[in-house]
Amino acid sequence: MKKEKIFFVNDYATVAHPNLLKALSEANFNNEMGYGDDDYCQEAINLIKKECGNDDVDVFFLMGGTQTNMIVLNSILRSYQGVISAQTGHIATHETGAIERGGHKVLTIEANEEGKLNAKQIEDCCNDYNNDVNSLHIVQPGCVYISHPTESGALYTKDELIEINEVCKKEGLLLYVDGARLGYALASIKNNITLKDLTFLTDVFYIGGTKCGAMLGEALVINNKELTPYIRYSMKPCGGLLAKGMILGIQFKELFTNNLYVEICKKADDMAQRIANTFEECGYTMFTKSYTNQQFVIIDNESLKKFDELYDFAMWMRIDDEHSIVRVCTSWSTSEQMISSLINDIKRFRLN
Amino acid sequence: MKKEKIFFVNDYATVAHPNLLKALSEANFNNEMGYGDDDYCQEAINLIKKECGNDDVDVFFLMGGTQTNMIVLNSILRSYQGVISAQTGHIATHETGAIERGGHKVLTIEANEEGKLNAKQIEDCCNDYNNDVNSLHIVQPGCVYISHPTESGALYTKDELIEINEVCKKEGLLLYVDGARLGYALASIKNNITLKDLTFLTDVFYIGGTKCGAMLGEALVINNKELTPYIRYSMKPCGGLLAKGMILGIQFKELFTNNLYVEICKKADDMAQRIANTFEECGYTMFTKSYTNQQFVIIDNESLKKFDELYDFAMWMRIDDEHSIVRVCTSWSTSEQMISSLINDIKRFRLN
Amino acid sequence: MKKEKIFFVNDYATVAHPNLLKALSEANFNNEMGYGDDDYCQEAINLIKKECGNDDVDVFFLMGGTQTNMIVLNSILRSYQGVISAQTGHIATHETGAIERGGHKVLTIEANEEGKLNAKQIEDCCNDYNNDVNSLHIVQPGCVYISHPTESGALYTKDELIEINEVCKKEGLLLYVDGARLGYALASIKNNITLKDLTFLTDVFYIGGTKCGAMLGEALVINNKELTPYIRYSMKPCGGLLAKGMILGIQFKELFTNNLYVEICKKADDMAQRIANTFEECGYTMFTKSYTNQQFVIIDNESLKKFDELYDFAMWMRIDDEHSIVRVCTSWSTSEQMISSLINDIKRFRLN
Amino acid sequence: MKKEKIFFVNDYATVAHPNLLKALSEANFNNEMGYGDDDYCQEAINLIKKECGNDDVDVFFLMGGTQTNMIVLNSILRSYQGVISAQTGHIATHETGAIERGGHKVLTIEANEEGKLNAKQIEDCCNDYNNDVNSLHIVQPGCVYISHPTESGALYTKDELIEINEVCKKEGLLLYVDGARLGYALASIKNNITLKDLTFLTDVFYIGGTKCGAMLGEALVINNKELTPYIRYSMKPCGGLLAKGMILGIQFKELFTNNLYVEICKKADDMAQRIANTFEECGYTMFTKSYTNQQFVIIDNESLKKFDELYDFAMWMRIDDEHSIVRVCTSWSTSEQMISSLINDIKRFRLN
Repeated sequence: MKKEKIFFVNDYATVAHPNLLKALSEANFNNEMGYGDDDYCQEAINLIKKECGNDDVDVFFLMGGTQTNMIVLNSILRSYQGVISAQTGHIATHETGAIERGGHKVLTIEANEEGKLNAKQIEDCCNDYNNDVNSLHIVQPGCVYISHPTESGALYTKDELIEINEVCKKEGLLLYVDGARLGYALASIKNNITLKDLTFLTDVFYIGGTKCGAMLGEALVINNKELTPYIRYSMKPCGGLLAKGMILGIQFKELFTNNLYVEICKKADDMAQRIANTFEECGYTMFTKSYTNQQFVIIDNESLKKFDELYDFAMWMRIDDEHSIVRVCTSWSTSEQMISSLINDIKRFRLN
Repeated sequence: MKKEKIFFVNDYATVAHPNLLKALSEANFNNEMGYGDDDYCQEAINLIKKECGNDDVDVFFLMGGTQTNMIVLNSILRSYQGVISAQTGHIATHETGAIERGGHKVLTIEANEEGKLNAKQIEDCCNDYNNDVNSLHIVQPGCVYISHPTESGALYTKDELIEINEVCKKEGLLLYVDGARLGYALASIKNNITLKDLTFLTDVFYIGGTKCGAMLGEALVINNKELTPYIRYSMKPCGGLLAKGMILGIQFKELFTNNLYVEICKKADDMAQRIANTFEECGYTMFTKSYTNQQFVIIDNESLKKFDELYDFAMWMRIDDEHSIVRVCTSWSTSEQMISSLINDIKRFRLN
Repeated sequence: MKKEKIFFVNDYATVAHPNLLKALSEANFNNEMGYGDDDYCQEAINLIKKECGNDDVDVFFLMGGTQTNMIVLNSILRSYQGVISAQTGHIATHETGAIERGGHKVLTIEANEEGKLNAKQIEDCCNDYNNDVNSLHIVQPGCVYISHPTESGALYTKDELIEINEVCKKEGLLLYVDGARLGYALASIKNNITLKDLTFLTDVFYIGGTKCGAMLGEALVINNKELTPYIRYSMKPCGGLLAKGMILGIQFKELFTNNLYVEICKKADDMAQRIANTFEECGYTMFTKSYTNQQFVIIDNESLKKFDELYDFAMWMRIDDEHSIVRVCTSWSTSEQMISSLINDIKRFRLN
Repeated sequence: MKKEKIFFVNDYATVAHPNLLKALSEANFNNEMGYGDDDYCQEAINLIKKECGNDDVDVFFLMGGTQTNMIVLNSILRSYQGVISAQTGHIATHETGAIERGGHKVLTIEANEEGKLNAKQIEDCCNDYNNDVNSLHIVQPGCVYISHPTESGALYTKDELIEINEVCKKEGLLLYVDGARLGYALASIKNNITLKDLTFLTDVFYIGGTKCGAMLGEALVINNKELTPYIRYSMKPCGGLLAKGMILGIQFKELFTNNLYVEICKKADDMAQRIANTFEECGYTMFTKSYTNQQFVIIDNESLKKFDELYDFAMWMRIDDEHSIVRVCTSWSTSEQMISSLINDIKRFRLN
């Protein structure tokens, strides 16, 4: 029943982009080395380095976002350090305490509705620590975690990232960027941060596969090579070293061939933009201004009921008795037909 | 170059059984619920329960063997308990300290070359603990870990498992069976332990997918339902809850349709048996008697050199200056042609 | 130089009440069993049970408050659970992430300036968890942590504690009370919670020694005996099992002989009350109404400067450019002379 | 009843050397800074540095041996590393898995009955790791743990320590020395390793207080100052930062005044030597040759029964049906009268 509605719930509801499935099938009867020491992984790594315009990085493949966050943060932090995050950061809200389970406190900072941190907030947090006469009794910030795009689809500007990088350098903090949906950022009309920028302005980041067309997989890019052994040797004991590592390599090789990764995300971004524009034209208010594939619209109960008969959106939060925020999400598998239908119905259910 | 040799290194060198890849492709455009709440997972669970002949179990899908061992053991043990394992157990040797990283000591017992524990050894270990006046100063055994088949391909008998189960019950220990290669056991001519037996004689076990034809994935079967929440809620923070859980469901649904799981393992077992028989007929000594898909043969340097020009085996260990043990491993993707070639060459390189 | 000022900074600045030092000296040449299996510990346990009016508890001695919180919480929580605490709770602010280092998230609730949680807030927190469709992705509350008195000297009433106990029972939460300064609560004119009440209304609590006259030591009282092994076996690996456990037993035996524990705290409470009353009479505002040994007074910069020449107070926090909150703290070693001097000077520096 | 026997069970059965208790009493009414920031700690640190003949070290005080081992090892190891130890090392046998609980595997090496490791064994262990093609799957050695004296009272020679230091340097391993009974080594007639040597030949070591006359307390000496923050910041969250840190400072100040630390250990060593000599003269065999305060004698059941009526020894292990090893242990509180009595009775119960 649910599946008969038109699906805009999330970007991880279909198996994988067909090119990737095809590549997996074609590669099937080669006997490859295990644990990522295969040729596909090596080719994918080379393609990623090339796309980054920076050969001086280390690249590893992991299986999912939480696993990646957990392995990276629990490996690069010293045992007494915590990680600074927006209070809306994925590690602070929806990873069931993965960072704490690994022994580290998430030091949350109140971010605005876009979910972005700024350099000033980070510096204040460090000052609070440094100026506390009881600093031995409080958790030392050791790393900054940001998401690009953020959990609500917002984008950092390059200037903002430069400022964050500078304060991190100054305060001795590592900078880690969660790129679960990085493709949608790279493809966005408003984005001015390139993969190359990320290799210079962060210590580690990852290029999300799972939510950008892959069956599973995230490509971790380590720019600060001092961190490589900490992460590399932690993959196996944290359950992150896949026996058939090749399946990640095959997928990322395909995603980074002929610009597929950005192309499929661009299509999704464009569709999301058309949806957002239509909502606004029809009198709805967007909760945040997003230029990526997630759109957050404020909707009254009556309208919601109408949409709910035809569409699957993700309920984000209730605002008051009369209004909610829903997330409308596109992906590589959203079709033109689905979009047309939704746009027509937004117009049909217009507010004014 | 390496790949031009005929491959008998391991059972995880090809992507997946074609039926599984086909099923993944066919399922591609359905929009499914995330995190394992999809219909495919539910169907796979039902098929597994049916094959277990026991509806009173909980089934979850995880991504790999180390991840499964880590999540299960670190969840079911209390913080002060350790897990009993053969010194050759996978958790004791090749998981980079995953259990210790989770906070628990692996209490190793010297097993014979087959890698099997027996009830008496487990009881002795408990007696040592219980009789120690300083028991507060030593780690309490909380669980027993065994592999079926073991890391060297050996099989427990049902009687042995019953005895181990009894001593665990008596001593208040949980019993966990690592079934990374369970398919090869179930298909073996010498096996007398069924899936149903495992649901009655263990607290938790898993049905290995990765090494038995799947791209990735292990099906965890929890018989002792008191343990379910400990394991269930630990999947996400340990990085074991896949966003696209459906890909595990799709594969296990396929593996448990038309007996595929056992069929493909049976073929590999049979081939391995023919290899072992030929080695023995030709004067070679097997390190252990294995009736599953891994065969361990003692080989002199001169013969090894000959094989090494044509075949990829796994070097297991050196015995002395003149001899080594190599592992010859089959899988669903081993072809009749590969086997014939190897059998001919064993005969060609016969010792006597 | 600093020490020439009159000391009201904290309640742990002197070695120990003289009776305790005397008892340690007198016991010196007995050869006692190690690790708390000695006669003194046994006698102290008996005295504590008697004072609790409840023989059906288990009592263990630990060395300090953070150690106790860490051992208890990290032992009684399952690996996927967190602990609910006021955002001002000691475990949330001043234990350098000890709970997170042990693998658990502190789930903070905004408390008022008294630092007290109420049953409603706890229930809301549980409801949020239970009603979240993504509850697998968020940390499950497993325990409630409260301090009596709180970090700002406030006292729970028996009715409040009964309500908290009830909501914990209903929601399946354990209830743990941090009694670092429990003596000052028991001795307070406003307190109506007895040790016996604590044995019925909590799962575990501790009777603080370090801040109530002992050199070091906290007496852990476990009412929910199911928890005993989890805690007991965790003492040694967490560094909490003192070789010379007797020194804790000797001190607690002395503290619970002739009501010494409550007597010395009562004296400190009374002195603190006289100070608070004088501050209020002289136009100062107390930040919170405290009836224990810690008094928090709002003080303008000019007055602060005057006091600061003669007295050592603890700077609590700045309120604005003109005002701060300072903590004035008494203990068993605060003398009548110190109090008279301070009272005279408060009057001398009166505001109105 | 037990206490009426003459006590040779261990060296931590009495409260503390009287000088220390006297110093604690005399210091009682000073108001000192908390958490080790007091003048006594500073004076003790200065005395220890002077005794080490090396000002370029950091010194901190902790409460007990297991706590110290746990805090040091879990802080200085990276998350994927383990610690090499003799299989008889205290961390491998009698700390209830404290190191594993902190996330690290103890990599045990078979040592002889003296419990000493040698440089060759350590190098072999590193070679095994470095040469393993699956090194990502096994735990990387990160540190070497040795005890001086060992758990069976044996002493490393300076040459042995130099060799171990060299192999550690070469292999990139940290070297940590557990000095729970270091006083008995420093005072031994056979010892040629000074405190100064330890500051040059190890990265960290501790000077044991608890078993050498203190009520509680161990002085950690960090020679490799890169490690200081890792350890320093881990003290609080591991429950190792005592509120009344002064009580550790007061004791160590006293122990390092007028050579008290070595004097009291020397007396105990001498007494132990007289006991050992008498046992040997009377036909008994010592299990190991010890020149410190612990003596391990092989004793037949019949003799044991005679001694057991008059003396409390520690049962070490049974060798066969007829023989056991018992530990006879002296300390600062062993009196000349106790020794004379024992020597007479050894002669009385002579074997030949």
